[in-house]
Amino acid sequence: MIPVAIMGGSGYTGVELMRLIAGHPQLQLTAVSSSQYEGQAVEAVFGALEGGLNLSFTPHDPAALAGSARLAFLAVPHKAAMAAAPAILAAGAKVVDLSADFRLRDRAVYEKWYAPHSAPELLAEAVYGLPEFYREQIKAARLVANPGCYVTSVLVALVPLLRAGLISPQGLIADSASGVSGAGRGAKLNLLHGEVHENFRPYSVDGHRHTPEMEQELSLAAGQEVRLTFTPHLLPMDRGILSTIYAQAVGGSDEQAVRDCWQRAYGAEPFVRVLAKGRLPETKQVRGSNRVQLAVARDPRSGVLKIFSALDNLTKGASGQAVQNANLMLGLPETAGLTELALTP
Amino acid sequence: MIPVAIMGGSGYTGVELMRLIAGHPQLQLTAVSSSQYEGQAVEAVFGALEGGLNLSFTPHDPAALAGSARLAFLAVPHKAAMAAAPAILAAGAKVVDLSADFRLRDRAVYEKWYAPHSAPELLAEAVYGLPEFYREQIKAARLVANPGCYVTSVLVALVPLLRAGLISPQGLIADSASGVSGAGRGAKLNLLHGEVHENFRPYSVDGHRHTPEMEQELSLAAGQEVRLTFTPHLLPMDRGILSTIYAQAVGGSDEQAVRDCWQRAYGAEPFVRVLAKGRLPETKQVRGSNRVQLAVARDPRSGVLKIFSALDNLTKGASGQAVQNANLMLGLPETAGLTELALTP
Amino acid sequence: MIPVAIMGGSGYTGVELMRLIAGHPQLQLTAVSSSQYEGQAVEAVFGALEGGLNLSFTPHDPAALAGSARLAFLAVPHKAAMAAAPAILAAGAKVVDLSADFRLRDRAVYEKWYAPHSAPELLAEAVYGLPEFYREQIKAARLVANPGCYVTSVLVALVPLLRAGLISPQGLIADSASGVSGAGRGAKLNLLHGEVHENFRPYSVDGHRHTPEMEQELSLAAGQEVRLTFTPHLLPMDRGILSTIYAQAVGGSDEQAVRDCWQRAYGAEPFVRVLAKGRLPETKQVRGSNRVQLAVARDPRSGVLKIFSALDNLTKGASGQAVQNANLMLGLPETAGLTELALTP
Amino acid sequence: MIPVAIMGGSGYTGVELMRLIAGHPQLQLTAVSSSQYEGQAVEAVFGALEGGLNLSFTPHDPAALAGSARLAFLAVPHKAAMAAAPAILAAGAKVVDLSADFRLRDRAVYEKWYAPHSAPELLAEAVYGLPEFYREQIKAARLVANPGCYVTSVLVALVPLLRAGLISPQGLIADSASGVSGAGRGAKLNLLHGEVHENFRPYSVDGHRHTPEMEQELSLAAGQEVRLTFTPHLLPMDRGILSTIYAQAVGGSDEQAVRDCWQRAYGAEPFVRVLAKGRLPETKQVRGSNRVQLAVARDPRSGVLKIFSALDNLTKGASGQAVQNANLMLGLPETAGLTELALTP
Repeated sequence: MIPVAIMGGSGYTGVELMRLIAGHPQLQLTAVSSSQYEGQAVEAVFGALEGGLNLSFTPHDPAALAGSARLAFLAVPHKAAMAAAPAILAAGAKVVDLSADFRLRDRAVYEKWYAPHSAPELLAEAVYGLPEFYREQIKAARLVANPGCYVTSVLVALVPLLRAGLISPQGLIADSASGVSGAGRGAKLNLLHGEVHENFRPYSVDGHRHTPEMEQELSLAAGQEVRLTFTPHLLPMDRGILSTIYAQAVGGSDEQAVRDCWQRAYGAEPFVRVLAKGRLPETKQVRGSNRVQLAVARDPRSGVLKIFSALDNLTKGASGQAVQNANLMLGLPETAGLTELALTP
Repeated sequence: MIPVAIMGGSGYTGVELMRLIAGHPQLQLTAVSSSQYEGQAVEAVFGALEGGLNLSFTPHDPAALAGSARLAFLAVPHKAAMAAAPAILAAGAKVVDLSADFRLRDRAVYEKWYAPHSAPELLAEAVYGLPEFYREQIKAARLVANPGCYVTSVLVALVPLLRAGLISPQGLIADSASGVSGAGRGAKLNLLHGEVHENFRPYSVDGHRHTPEMEQELSLAAGQEVRLTFTPHLLPMDRGILSTIYAQAVGGSDEQAVRDCWQRAYGAEPFVRVLAKGRLPETKQVRGSNRVQLAVARDPRSGVLKIFSALDNLTKGASGQAVQNANLMLGLPETAGLTELALTP
Repeated sequence: MIPVAIMGGSGYTGVELMRLIAGHPQLQLTAVSSSQYEGQAVEAVFGALEGGLNLSFTPHDPAALAGSARLAFLAVPHKAAMAAAPAILAAGAKVVDLSADFRLRDRAVYEKWYAPHSAPELLAEAVYGLPEFYREQIKAARLVANPGCYVTSVLVALVPLLRAGLISPQGLIADSASGVSGAGRGAKLNLLHGEVHENFRPYSVDGHRHTPEMEQELSLAAGQEVRLTFTPHLLPMDRGILSTIYAQAVGGSDEQAVRDCWQRAYGAEPFVRVLAKGRLPETKQVRGSNRVQLAVARDPRSGVLKIFSALDNLTKGASGQAVQNANLMLGLPETAGLTELALTP
Repeated sequence: MIPVAIMGGSGYTGVELMRLIAGHPQLQLTAVSSSQYEGQAVEAVFGALEGGLNLSFTPHDPAALAGSARLAFLAVPHKAAMAAAPAILAAGAKVVDLSADFRLRDRAVYEKWYAPHSAPELLAEAVYGLPEFYREQIKAARLVANPGCYVTSVLVALVPLLRAGLISPQGLIADSASGVSGAGRGAKLNLLHGEVHENFRPYSVDGHRHTPEMEQELSLAAGQEVRLTFTPHLLPMDRGILSTIYAQAVGGSDEQAVRDCWQRAYGAEPFVRVLAKGRLPETKQVRGSNRVQLAVARDPRSGVLKIFSALDNLTKGASGQAVQNANLMLGLPETAGLTELALTP
């Protein structure tokens, strides 16, 4: 068993990491920190984990976490992550950072959307943690920047198509909707059941922080600058993201061309499911699993390609992908601990 | 009190009509038919209506319904509606048809998307029942075709903008999501709680029957043929439609120009709410009310206009609008019986 | 129109009061206070009310609220209510208090379960606001203590049966479940969608503050001290309380005897619905309405009477009942503004 | 890998069995039958299972199913199960029957509540499949009758207490609530999202078929006939049962005595969690897991013991328990394939 640690265990990505590690055949959680629950038993806070771990929450001490583990997951907010990463790396542990702090290669872009960067020297070293595109770099990395949830849903769908030139890099629109766990586990009025249940609404319509991250990777795939129109919505449910993406086909490429392109890219991938003609993604079918479901339909009237991508924002969109990255960084089978299927219903 | 009747009282639009009429100060329900519940007391089937009506379901007999009423609502499926309408009109009652049978002005378009038309002679007479655009014609009509739910959400948002030339008629995309009551009250596997709850999914992505209806009215507003890319999704909730519409601004029109245009069109409208800058529609805020909420945001990176429209699919999207039409046809105040506000939460 | 005011407009009972008053034919809201939203427009905070009121939230100033109104609703937490009531009464306005501050006739009982009482001189004057039992006193009252939500569901079911001696006052068990709005609109972790959705759990199992209130009124009805075993549960929904009550029949009283007793007590009541044999209460059928549904079944094996009572915790369980009380206190028809039926679905 | 088969793969217990077997380290599904989906690929019907199995639904042929497998799960309705069991046993395969057909030891009781029994000769042989009480008999059994979902929640809570004489066998009341998946996956009106969502209601209040099954096992535990008052309710959620049970303490037994008794009974059990004082069961904490959570509180006023028991009706309440039984019958570790923890949230 390989010892790993989590900095930030009181949020939904933290508890999802704990759930996955508790069921992982080769990882053992040796420490988990939380300022909110410091000193309390993990299982007293998260009853679902009872008996699966035998730990109490520790303070946020990067060196202590690193000392007990070969790899640390950072499940703290941005800024806290870049403050902790250097010390953990210096102590000899690898890092998978679930925050945004090391996702943007361009420091200026990061600082425009987030805050001044306190560890810019690590930006060049950090590897973007989408294993389907950066597998070999991840295997060799000390520091992996785990992608955003919306971002993963859009990139898995579009990157192969842009690389292959099947869709235009102009005019891309991603209309996405997420379950509320993507907004975290903070005691905020707008996350109350009474505000979310039986409701559907857009938010951050003037610019969501995931936009530059998507544009960075889409531009790399397209070989030119891509501007994406992105609109997130909040769903009355806990888990799941569905992105409906509108793209112009290039050279008359049709549904089958898109499916074939995905098949070439993902035929050997364990977590990307290209759905057969006639089937469409449903968030419930990937809930709690590390999967992405993809499908495409060509609008018969406008010719626009409608591209659909579904995942669980906490699993493939966050903690599951983080474990996938950790598996690669630690030389384990990539699917270890990640084979659960979604419940029906 | 003016006597009215309902053909088709066992579905969700039928029971919504009954609820609205039970609370209407000037309408009295004299008969409601249902093949499924024929002979049963309305209140034994729909407990929420107990004490509000004192009726039993009758067979589907157009002449009998017409005989007891000055206006009949047709809340039966398409085909059944056009089979019944001529007899009801002949008996001297007015008709508000909630089905699709008289919405499409072009018989060939109707027959392509639906079925052979059995009452084509009425197509020219039927008035499209969107009071915000056809108020005067509705007042004078014998037969009103009540619009589709998705359709209302899109048309209220776009028609004034196309008429004013503020947005391009090319490349319009409507990404919509609906609560499950829009799919009716049939005992179908895909409408079970276990299939809908905690799930989000697209459907009818190759062409939904509401598309030609939208294109008909959008083309009239634009003065040229409009092709719309439309994608419906199913939400894990009972009621509510939110449409997120992507449009190209013409001549640099910005958010304020859109809001001003809506304000000119809807400033005196009782049921259309143009939200102030910074506010966005939420389906919960219009649930059970006859309102439409509108908002707009210009994407700062792509320049695309994002237009948001929310309504309750059973109220302004169906039965509330039907009562609004009936009020106009019967010379009543347009808002009579339609002033309820949404519950919070 | 009679001017009324609300102290405490930021919680769910406050906004429910505003919704009901906005649709009330004879009440006009002249002021609503909120420390959280002081100075903000009501409609900017609660979008569902847009256009229905034209007010901004004021500070909590009892005299100012009383000055503008003939009656004030106190929708603030306990302690704040008893601090404000004397000044409002002194200024000449009547008071309907939705908190617990004036519900318990015995000051010692109040102080055991809540806090020291700051206005004990008003306890004798306050009338318990269950119109079905105290209608005449309410009409004459200056100060009405609006009952608790669970309490109303239990008392409406049991009081007539205890008065008539049909059930034993010994061994009563009330197993109740409530939608989450009953816990208020505070930004608390345990009220998040992620904690409530797809979950069901008991709480306050060692003694809920509604217990002494129930026992006070049940004891009065029984003419002897009643001890109730009460267990509340939290439902994954917004609104609705269902109480399932277990009672021993006295003298072989059967289902029909219970129904007959209720019928005698409630035959003329506008808001209590005694369901026919074979029908059972459903919270959805009373959602947003001011109704209580009652039913009974005698367990064929144990002989125990199962008594069912459903209401909306925010309407008949709080703000609807408060308006019902205000109607009586102001000489208006008791049902004014309270005739809405529940939505289906 | 040990080959197993499922008769009846189109319902929720069938698909839950497939999910669990797909993740089981030592079981391989060789055949699954369905009349509804005969000939279709499993993964085309249940998208969540894609890639986990590679099977198409076969007709209901007991001999064929038995021929391919060492054990068959019967996930068909009662009557169909007893029709199939003899042929499967005769073909040499063991049987875990998830229906009610072999749960009641007394044929007359079965026939009173269900239907004439077609295989009464197997009733004496069938072992009641609650491993916590019948582990050794299950290991040796050819035919195991998997308990009902409500039943498991009640028996796990009460059997040790009755055996130890800590509670009275008189006056037991079980007030239970279940997610809607317990009602199956039939296309029925009362299971629609629109009927279940934001609703809570009792049902089968005059006698639910699980009652005699509970009384059979409770009577055995008590050593005398037990009559149980049982009331099921339908929750607006997919999965989960919570039973709140009211019992009279015997000889002044308190909370700690109950907890100690459970600890003695379940200290070594992998799937029964006795919660520490201060914690209460939540269905979400056991969702998708094979666990039961137990807690107790003594009402400080009435002295009544409130006993709480939570499980997932499809896992420990049906298919998870069936796999647990199969593990025992096949000589596998009892927890094989059953170690998943519930998602948070």
